[in-house]
Amino acid sequence: MKSSYSHGGNHREVAKRYGFSPDEILDFSANINPWTSSLGIEEIVRVNLKDIYHYPDPQYAELIKQISQYLGVDRENILAGNGSTELIYLAARALLPRRALIFAPTFFEYERALKTCGGEPKFLFLKESRGFSVNIQKIIEATEDVEAVFIGNPNNPTGTFFPKEKLLELVKITEEREIALILDESYLDFKYPGESLVKEAQETRHLLVLRSFTKFFGIAGLRLGYGVGGRRVIEKMAHFKEPWTVNCLAQAVGAYLLGNEQKIKEIREAVNKEAEFLFGELCRIAGLKPYPPEANFILVKIETELSSSKLQEDLAKKGILIRDCSNFVGLNDKFFRVAVRKREENLRLIDSLREAI
Amino acid sequence: MKSSYSHGGNHREVAKRYGFSPDEILDFSANINPWTSSLGIEEIVRVNLKDIYHYPDPQYAELIKQISQYLGVDRENILAGNGSTELIYLAARALLPRRALIFAPTFFEYERALKTCGGEPKFLFLKESRGFSVNIQKIIEATEDVEAVFIGNPNNPTGTFFPKEKLLELVKITEEREIALILDESYLDFKYPGESLVKEAQETRHLLVLRSFTKFFGIAGLRLGYGVGGRRVIEKMAHFKEPWTVNCLAQAVGAYLLGNEQKIKEIREAVNKEAEFLFGELCRIAGLKPYPPEANFILVKIETELSSSKLQEDLAKKGILIRDCSNFVGLNDKFFRVAVRKREENLRLIDSLREAI
Repeated sequence: MKSSYSHGGNHREVAKRYGFSPDEILDFSANINPWTSSLGIEEIVRVNLKDIYHYPDPQYAELIKQISQYLGVDRENILAGNGSTELIYLAARALLPRRALIFAPTFFEYERALKTCGGEPKFLFLKESRGFSVNIQKIIEATEDVEAVFIGNPNNPTGTFFPKEKLLELVKITEEREIALILDESYLDFKYPGESLVKEAQETRHLLVLRSFTKFFGIAGLRLGYGVGGRRVIEKMAHFKEPWTVNCLAQAVGAYLLGNEQKIKEIREAVNKEAEFLFGELCRIAGLKPYPPEANFILVKIETELSSSKLQEDLAKKGILIRDCSNFVGLNDKFFRVAVRKREENLRLIDSLREAI
Repeated sequence: MKSSYSHGGNHREVAKRYGFSPDEILDFSANINPWTSSLGIEEIVRVNLKDIYHYPDPQYAELIKQISQYLGVDRENILAGNGSTELIYLAARALLPRRALIFAPTFFEYERALKTCGGEPKFLFLKESRGFSVNIQKIIEATEDVEAVFIGNPNNPTGTFFPKEKLLELVKITEEREIALILDESYLDFKYPGESLVKEAQETRHLLVLRSFTKFFGIAGLRLGYGVGGRRVIEKMAHFKEPWTVNCLAQAVGAYLLGNEQKIKEIREAVNKEAEFLFGELCRIAGLKPYPPEANFILVKIETELSSSKLQEDLAKKGILIRDCSNFVGLNDKFFRVAVRKREENLRLIDSLREAI
């Protein structure tokens, strides 16, 4: 495995290095939603504690039932996973593309999953000069010599977003050409819940939509995600799926969470409101260029002499952790990413950034 | 995935079918230790609940440190997993044997892991006429045309056990011939804690020892296991290992549990004492032939006209779940397996068996 610094969220390592307790670190490096306290997640864990003495239901029946009801998708089209990460790797194994189209920059695990299965990435570079956007036609052209396409929608860390009708143009082509399309909607629920392709995925042969509980519901430590696809893809994945990967507490919490539609709506509004606030404040700092938030994180370019690693270090000394983006393919040491946190914490970030820049 | 009946532990499905609540089912089908209440596992989960909002430490540093101290093995030789099952699949992927020696009967996931990686099992049948024992020389002879060997020690469900010095004879050969030896010690701690090969594994190039928290500590729902091997094997596995597979609560509980040496000893004694009692009682039922316990489970042959599936059904109607072993390669519908539970529960099992036979 690469160094633990290859992703955000290593608040323990940073705490140790700079003499803080892990709890003291204000972690903007992992895109985890802090607005979930109203959901009563910890109480659900407590109530289901006795489950730890039994094997998880290998069919995840109750969880799949709840996901099915929440999405309006048949149970047979759903697969649960140990975070959406398990399903990224499982898709790579089940579909075994020799060559797959991957955005640059994007979430590192698409490339790693592909490579561990012997595949090679074909990078589609999102250009800074175009605000990291890309049109669907360009993607379609780039699929000519690949067997799979990985797309994060919105894309991490750039926020690149495609509305449903644009993606359906791509799906039409990938279905025709029999190209696997792994569409990662882990961050979609924050701003665009109506743009999901989960329903459409049921009728396809080559589309797999990935969804995560980790980000929106903030339960990265419990590990829960799921995939939705047509029967063909789901059966292929099930053939390779390892048993019991989703622990019993994640199952119980996941099944419970989806029943909270009203609270989900409120949380969504709170995140988006604060995302706009944080974006506005970042815009006001001379020397920083933030990209508009499409989920609960913001990519920022440093337009001064400062490097992202130096900035990360400067802030870490104050107990604030940001995601240095220099190790993303397609970015460099002028980029960092911050998650949207609550007002007071965002203000601390803004103050510290202002001092550092 | 095969039907959920391919393993034990499906008390929820059985409860539903026969009109019980899951809590009412007395589950002898999963080999889970019921003597762990003195360990305070639930309290550790409660204390660490806030961890669910952070990504698990991708290096599992605290857990690996505790395992390292407990075993007296270097940290670099240890890999944590989502149960030992993750490591079985990871070993198959990392070592990619075309052909692997597997006992029959044994734990089904060795064969499945191998096959999902394109390998083929070569079965070494443990003969009923020899009490399912096999000598090391026979195993060594059978390794001639394989690239890997999977051995459970003790073997599930037969209890077949090899002392350390015998296994070292095999290790000598597998090292010489560069054959991967995956030695699953998931059940070793119940009766033979001194016979582990974890220390020896450090100096090897082809040996991987698997250990589980699931069985001895009874936390099957939390998912935790680990592997110990030489640098070569661990590095190969790490190359393929997916991030964040071990959830934060499993890490916290695992790190805590290994500090309880005295209680571990007491639990071991309690299980073995009760295993002997249950074995003795089973011996007294005319028409049943139990095999001596080498861990916390007992394989039993039915010597009457009754089939194991019929027996399972008869007992399930009373809320008692046993493991019908007819789907193990090398067994048939005359075999079942029971886990060792506490006295009162074992007596209920014995009574019900007596009625059914």
